[in-house]
Amino acid sequence: MALKLYVDRMSQPSRAVIIFCKLNGIDFEEVRINLSKREQLSPEFKEINPMKQVPAIMDGRFKLSESHAILKYLACAFPGIADHWYPADLYKRAKVDSVLDWHHSNLRRGAAAYVFSTVLAPSFGLTLNPQAAAEAEKVLLTSLAKIESVWLQKKGQFLLGSGQPSIADLSLVCELMQLEVLDEKDRERIIGPYKRVLKWIDDTKNAMQPHFQEVHVILFKAKERFHKQRSAVGSSLPQSSRKPDLHSKM
Amino acid sequence: MALKLYVDRMSQPSRAVIIFCKLNGIDFEEVRINLSKREQLSPEFKEINPMKQVPAIMDGRFKLSESHAILKYLACAFPGIADHWYPADLYKRAKVDSVLDWHHSNLRRGAAAYVFSTVLAPSFGLTLNPQAAAEAEKVLLTSLAKIESVWLQKKGQFLLGSGQPSIADLSLVCELMQLEVLDEKDRERIIGPYKRVLKWIDDTKNAMQPHFQEVHVILFKAKERFHKQRSAVGSSLPQSSRKPDLHSKM
Repeated sequence: MALKLYVDRMSQPSRAVIIFCKLNGIDFEEVRINLSKREQLSPEFKEINPMKQVPAIMDGRFKLSESHAILKYLACAFPGIADHWYPADLYKRAKVDSVLDWHHSNLRRGAAAYVFSTVLAPSFGLTLNPQAAAEAEKVLLTSLAKIESVWLQKKGQFLLGSGQPSIADLSLVCELMQLEVLDEKDRERIIGPYKRVLKWIDDTKNAMQPHFQEVHVILFKAKERFHKQRSAVGSSLPQSSRKPDLHSKM
Repeated sequence: MALKLYVDRMSQPSRAVIIFCKLNGIDFEEVRINLSKREQLSPEFKEINPMKQVPAIMDGRFKLSESHAILKYLACAFPGIADHWYPADLYKRAKVDSVLDWHHSNLRRGAAAYVFSTVLAPSFGLTLNPQAAAEAEKVLLTSLAKIESVWLQKKGQFLLGSGQPSIADLSLVCELMQLEVLDEKDRERIIGPYKRVLKWIDDTKNAMQPHFQEVHVILFKAKERFHKQRSAVGSSLPQSSRKPDLHSKM
């Protein structure tokens, strides 16, 4: 029985797992769990992951959730996965673990909450939340500064000074890609000052083509859709109500 | 050079790392980084962990932060650590990884934020925050329900149906111990309904004595101190202002 991935490509950890499989020639069946239709709450999916979150996998009868645990499992369970993804060396592996653990309460907390409260909330029947956005932005900016000055401080194109990407590069860059759906001025204001981060995102994308681009197509379509919505809202307002920074209209 | 642990015993992930070392006979030097004095921000500590968080370790020249990464490293780096702490078996290890990853954005996010915004904030020069507390309580209650119904659903005293504790039991129970500093009625209201969780906390404590108790002494002293403060505030109020549930007075 082939590996099954239960994913929604609009979810950044889902994309990381799909890209990993494609890059490493791991055969899989993609089962879409549409988050905007709340399919993760269905009784069928609860049997796969009682935490009701994507991504989740089923490998034979073995079920697993949490993208970082899944990436580590896949890197170890399938033959021929290059060592740089999740190094066997104790010290290198511990450092990758450390970045991945740090991610949860820092970059992910900031980026996911910022994007949700400024753009995605209405797709889930909720209103935009400027206060939550302001709090998330602080966490996001602090996290970007830490990536720039700590995780990317050494030589080497990738995190921890590595010359090849690990699952930590994959996870964190997929998270940052979610910022694509923001108003372009917002995105530039937030990520623009972090030159090393921007270069690292490009390097990571390039190291993972063509799959990186292909798996993100859905996100670029969403970006266009949100851009059109913002333009429509902007042009329907009287001239005096239009503000150059759409972020401030939340 | 002995292993150095940079910790504050008032921090739950710090306690988990100390207890792990003591239980497994790992020699270490404890370097206290007093969070309430903001010692984690000092230039000296930045050299150890540029993320400015505890716990961090230095093993020879190898530096590592993030408690889960540290626990995994210690379980693998030191000889003779029993397998149940972090199983070598691919499937069992993946499941422990999954619980530990889940912890960050669920139990930790709820419990740490709730305790901080209802009790600890003034120790760090901040005011109590009822709105943050209400949001954190939701996350905390959902997390407790998930532990009760998912992670503890199988036979076996510990998480994932195991008969012996893993680093996931250690991490999650240390987090829940932080609820000790709450007003007793609050703590009972929050955790009381989760009978399996309560038994699992007791089982985990018992499996880790005497070190579990010893490393938590500082927390029990803090509990007494906060209790006295609450009593003093309560008795200084006019009778009509006293409420039976101190939580509602935040």
